[in-house]
Amino acid sequence: MKKRDLVTKTLIQVRFSEVDSMGIVWHGNYIKYFEDGREEFGNKFGINYLDFRNRGILIPIVKIGCDYKRPLIYGDFAVVETRFVNCEAAKIQYEYTLSHHKTHEIVATGSSTQVFLNLNRELLLDFPPFFLEWKKRNGLIAGH
Amino acid sequence: MKKRDLVTKTLIQVRFSEVDSMGIVWHGNYIKYFEDGREEFGNKFGINYLDFRNRGILIPIVKIGCDYKRPLIYGDFAVVETRFVNCEAAKIQYEYTLSHHKTHEIVATGSSTQVFLNLNRELLLDFPPFFLEWKKRNGLIAGH
Amino acid sequence: MKKRDLVTKTLIQVRFSEVDSMGIVWHGNYIKYFEDGREEFGNKFGINYLDFRNRGILIPIVKIGCDYKRPLIYGDFAVVETRFVNCEAAKIQYEYTLSHHKTHEIVATGSSTQVFLNLNRELLLDFPPFFLEWKKRNGLIAGH
Amino acid sequence: MKKRDLVTKTLIQVRFSEVDSMGIVWHGNYIKYFEDGREEFGNKFGINYLDFRNRGILIPIVKIGCDYKRPLIYGDFAVVETRFVNCEAAKIQYEYTLSHHKTHEIVATGSSTQVFLNLNRELLLDFPPFFLEWKKRNGLIAGH
Repeated sequence: MKKRDLVTKTLIQVRFSEVDSMGIVWHGNYIKYFEDGREEFGNKFGINYLDFRNRGILIPIVKIGCDYKRPLIYGDFAVVETRFVNCEAAKIQYEYTLSHHKTHEIVATGSSTQVFLNLNRELLLDFPPFFLEWKKRNGLIAGH
Repeated sequence: MKKRDLVTKTLIQVRFSEVDSMGIVWHGNYIKYFEDGREEFGNKFGINYLDFRNRGILIPIVKIGCDYKRPLIYGDFAVVETRFVNCEAAKIQYEYTLSHHKTHEIVATGSSTQVFLNLNRELLLDFPPFFLEWKKRNGLIAGH
Repeated sequence: MKKRDLVTKTLIQVRFSEVDSMGIVWHGNYIKYFEDGREEFGNKFGINYLDFRNRGILIPIVKIGCDYKRPLIYGDFAVVETRFVNCEAAKIQYEYTLSHHKTHEIVATGSSTQVFLNLNRELLLDFPPFFLEWKKRNGLIAGH
Repeated sequence: MKKRDLVTKTLIQVRFSEVDSMGIVWHGNYIKYFEDGREEFGNKFGINYLDFRNRGILIPIVKIGCDYKRPLIYGDFAVVETRFVNCEAAKIQYEYTLSHHKTHEIVATGSSTQVFLNLNRELLLDFPPFFLEWKKRNGLIAGH
């Protein structure tokens, strides 16, 4: 079975309202850029917020991290690379690399972890069947 | 019947993340300050978002406006005065005055209008009974 | 002299973080969408924030307004039409029309007004020469 | 020398605009809550953004992390505990604990790291004298 490369690239344009008084993008906005990347990934590969929500599953973020390397300024374009991390626990993990669009210099790296809840907000300890099938289809489970 | 003065004053502290690259509060954040004022009003007088929501009524904003007079900078404190405007149509209207906490200079003025929807998002052309009672209790309906 | 149609259309995708607990875009985010439109206009026609800033002129917003017609939900695409309004006073005015991308239904309309300040934040009562030239080039001043 | 306990507690009220379509605070807003805590700490202990800025030093965030334990909903009050972490490298580190105001249950924990830049945005490898003095005054440097 051919494995797809589970990664997307999302173009970001820095908005005026995202820049702080030091003239650079306020650090909290990178969390939004990562979400832009994660949403494009979910849309492309069929595992976005609504794909889960329509099956009665919530996928809240439980952990987020960001390392800032270089500033972004007003008018900059950047690319978020969102990469699916295959983990054995009942979680969804992504790694993010944010780069300048022109120079390809790395601006920031980050990661996020999501868990599965039912609509009563109870933690699901096993992969939901829908997601298990998705992992199989993408060659992410050994023996399949 | 003694009329209460239907107004609240809400203290605002400018956050670092609210200041733009010109060193002043980004204009879109004033809409948030007005909402802070509106929520305090709603909590104090018993007509907040949840008071309506629990009765099956949504109160979305349909009109907003803001006039900017003076800038706010990082570290400034300001006061939002939120004043209920008694209107005869099935709407909720507020007027806002944002002032410097120390100097009392006016920073901005604004207004908002909300309508009533049921949970199917259909417009209600009459005041919901709950709100009609509220208006009576506050001496806002002639003859009461 | 041929007049250019001073209007831009900017595609917007609703972000997850822009949707509120009623499942629709929080009203304050429309101010950001208008700014997205205004920035695209400024970039296309050479009168963006930096074009002024590099000539020692600040162009803060002094008035904003928005009328909300229909909600936007998560995943929606919308188009901001940004139209330059030719006014005789030393101001920059825009009108905005936000529409659903597919249905073309109008979601919101709005407007903004900006003034000219020097770097001491003093109001300029006349058009800056740079902007006067721009208006002439675009056939916006009678007799030219 | 008596050591002060280098910690502040900051009360947060969840804003309507901070809640997402799942009815809980959008995860990116916790970064703002941590900043609220960090600013109160900086104001109380004399090491805020402007204390550095006025000495020609910028203190950008280079690393941030957050672990989410429980959701916050609209109307909740929470407390950010901001604790200074004494580190030997030329950095400023804080740890944050966000708790429900009433139940004291932990909502989230997090951390941030800042570095020192001069106004040319060059990294300073040593503590700025102003900050070294501050550390001495607070008994954070051995032998003092």
